[in-house]
Amino acid sequence: MTLTEVPRGLAGVVVTDTALGDVRGQEGFYHYRQYSAVELAQSRTFEDVWHLMFHGRLPDAAESAAFAARTAALRRLPTDVRAALPGIARACATAGPLAGLRAALPLLGGAHGMRPLYDIGPAERSTDALAACAAVPVLLTALHRLGRGLEPVEPRDDLPYAANYLYMLTGEEPDARRARAVEQYLISTVDHGFNASTFTARVIASTGADLAACLCGAVGALSGPLHGGAPSRALDTLDAIGTPDRIGPWVREQVLAGGRIMGFGHPVYRTEDPRSRMLRGIAQEFGGPLVEFAVEVERQVEEVLAELKPGRELHTNVEFYAGVVMELCGLPREMFTPTFCAARMVGWSANILEQAEDSKIIRPAARYVGPPPPQPVPAVLG
Amino acid sequence: MTLTEVPRGLAGVVVTDTALGDVRGQEGFYHYRQYSAVELAQSRTFEDVWHLMFHGRLPDAAESAAFAARTAALRRLPTDVRAALPGIARACATAGPLAGLRAALPLLGGAHGMRPLYDIGPAERSTDALAACAAVPVLLTALHRLGRGLEPVEPRDDLPYAANYLYMLTGEEPDARRARAVEQYLISTVDHGFNASTFTARVIASTGADLAACLCGAVGALSGPLHGGAPSRALDTLDAIGTPDRIGPWVREQVLAGGRIMGFGHPVYRTEDPRSRMLRGIAQEFGGPLVEFAVEVERQVEEVLAELKPGRELHTNVEFYAGVVMELCGLPREMFTPTFCAARMVGWSANILEQAEDSKIIRPAARYVGPPPPQPVPAVLG
Repeated sequence: MTLTEVPRGLAGVVVTDTALGDVRGQEGFYHYRQYSAVELAQSRTFEDVWHLMFHGRLPDAAESAAFAARTAALRRLPTDVRAALPGIARACATAGPLAGLRAALPLLGGAHGMRPLYDIGPAERSTDALAACAAVPVLLTALHRLGRGLEPVEPRDDLPYAANYLYMLTGEEPDARRARAVEQYLISTVDHGFNASTFTARVIASTGADLAACLCGAVGALSGPLHGGAPSRALDTLDAIGTPDRIGPWVREQVLAGGRIMGFGHPVYRTEDPRSRMLRGIAQEFGGPLVEFAVEVERQVEEVLAELKPGRELHTNVEFYAGVVMELCGLPREMFTPTFCAARMVGWSANILEQAEDSKIIRPAARYVGPPPPQPVPAVLG
Repeated sequence: MTLTEVPRGLAGVVVTDTALGDVRGQEGFYHYRQYSAVELAQSRTFEDVWHLMFHGRLPDAAESAAFAARTAALRRLPTDVRAALPGIARACATAGPLAGLRAALPLLGGAHGMRPLYDIGPAERSTDALAACAAVPVLLTALHRLGRGLEPVEPRDDLPYAANYLYMLTGEEPDARRARAVEQYLISTVDHGFNASTFTARVIASTGADLAACLCGAVGALSGPLHGGAPSRALDTLDAIGTPDRIGPWVREQVLAGGRIMGFGHPVYRTEDPRSRMLRGIAQEFGGPLVEFAVEVERQVEEVLAELKPGRELHTNVEFYAGVVMELCGLPREMFTPTFCAARMVGWSANILEQAEDSKIIRPAARYVGPPPPQPVPAVLG
């Protein structure tokens, strides 16, 4: 086979066409299909965006209601999966709910009889993906609660996705403002170009594996530190600074030491991260000391950077205000990344469904650079 | 970012250098590091080859004994993982032991405190990989037995890898010939060039995720039908033919209908699959009606193809005689692919360890081909 040389890490190598969306880093813009993701977050429900990603268009009112009802009905876990969760939670006591989710996904796939992608048609694949996306918030909140010695809260199918998520987490119905803030965060997190976890999902999908196997691999890739995305770290930064008077010295020290400031900088955006801008707006509607503190940290980081590293554009990324918004909405920090993951399930699934329309395995090559074979195998010497 | 156009499915695109091995499809030859894999299978133990893959060289006698003892000691499962297995097995009653293994791997990673690959050094990564490879046969046999209502059999650390595997499966110590036949099969299955599951493992590894997350994704990719590799299908073919007198008509019918004959053909080899040749030899040492039948099917398939499709080289692949050998050694068909998977854990792990020496995320690009954004988001209409 002819070998093709490409940039390291496959950077810029076109692996597929997609109609799902893209990121325009230079413009500070990203979109789901033909719509601005931020505009979608501001004007539609999570379920509508989910419909858009799966079916290629926004639903009308009747379709919206039907889709919401259909996905709500899929929240209830199969008995065997539910029964296995306490054991999984115990074994994942340290590793946390995302590791538990990876354990639970194959069980969910098994219980729903999910079959290899190429053995079924688009409708059946879509049904599998709906079941997975609907169940993941239930799995995550149950694993979180079991990990703290609490009983899981059964999902309610009369609540929208975001409100039900908060309800299952706390056992209390959230107020409308918090539910909507979380919903907007979730929408903004559904997809974001061709990142490493999305690529992982598509590679596994290209072998024809079942949907749960693809999602499980994606969650694994998401857990990698180079993938980025850990909103709790940004909040840890705020904690580390402590009080407003310490912002200046702290930032100066970090920048001079060349340390990375969590919540700042993104590999793609050269402008402000559009998600960050939206989430700051949401946070500012809540107001309060945490928000004022965060805004002041952002201002001073940019000021100090402009002074000490002029020309270096560094802005808050999605982590920074995502952490603030989730804190304001009462989400425990352990659940920040899992919450991100729940929303991203929809994006991964849409990518898997799109990949399944192709039927070509994604399998690049490696170049052998070791000593030339065959060398004789030495006998074991005494 | 400049986009680079490459062949579909990344075919032939060089994603990495490797010193682990390669496949020479034109020559019917594959190797682990600088040694013929078949020669290794004929002259060394599974543990020695495992050492070769992890440490870059074959062990001497003292190292061999130490490595065998070290890995044997890692077989015992952490308590929480063992306790979760009955629940996992129940939920995977239909999906089978490989789905159960995917569920168990994150728990194993959690129980062993496996950390992100880039947060730890080579020695710690290698320790994690040893723990995973040592535990997988225990997990698989326990899941298989629990699925049949049997108690798991505790591993024995006085038995070599292959013998202990058969022992845990049946509860009886296998005879030396069967243990050695399975060991040779396992060695021949450790690695095989840059296939889709190996690539998946390396993509996840490139995000810095922990070892269990990488392996879990690889098992998912292996479960994809396009990945190939389901030795039980070849045996199902023998069953479908039934008796020696039906071979001729059956083969003729299949070839004329253009159907794929399971156990024949490989995307890379243009000659006989070297694994197939070795496994046929092992099978013929056992002898008996099944082996004679299989050899006759192989002979007649090649004869009929030469007559009806001259010029088309089609030989048995690894599935064909692997199925026969595993049947002769008393492995249940449900465990054929899991057995393959257990051995391949070593190859995947070696690839993950090699990938972790790099620190560049593998993240290609997609080209957006949908309608141009941004389109205004329509309001929901009543």
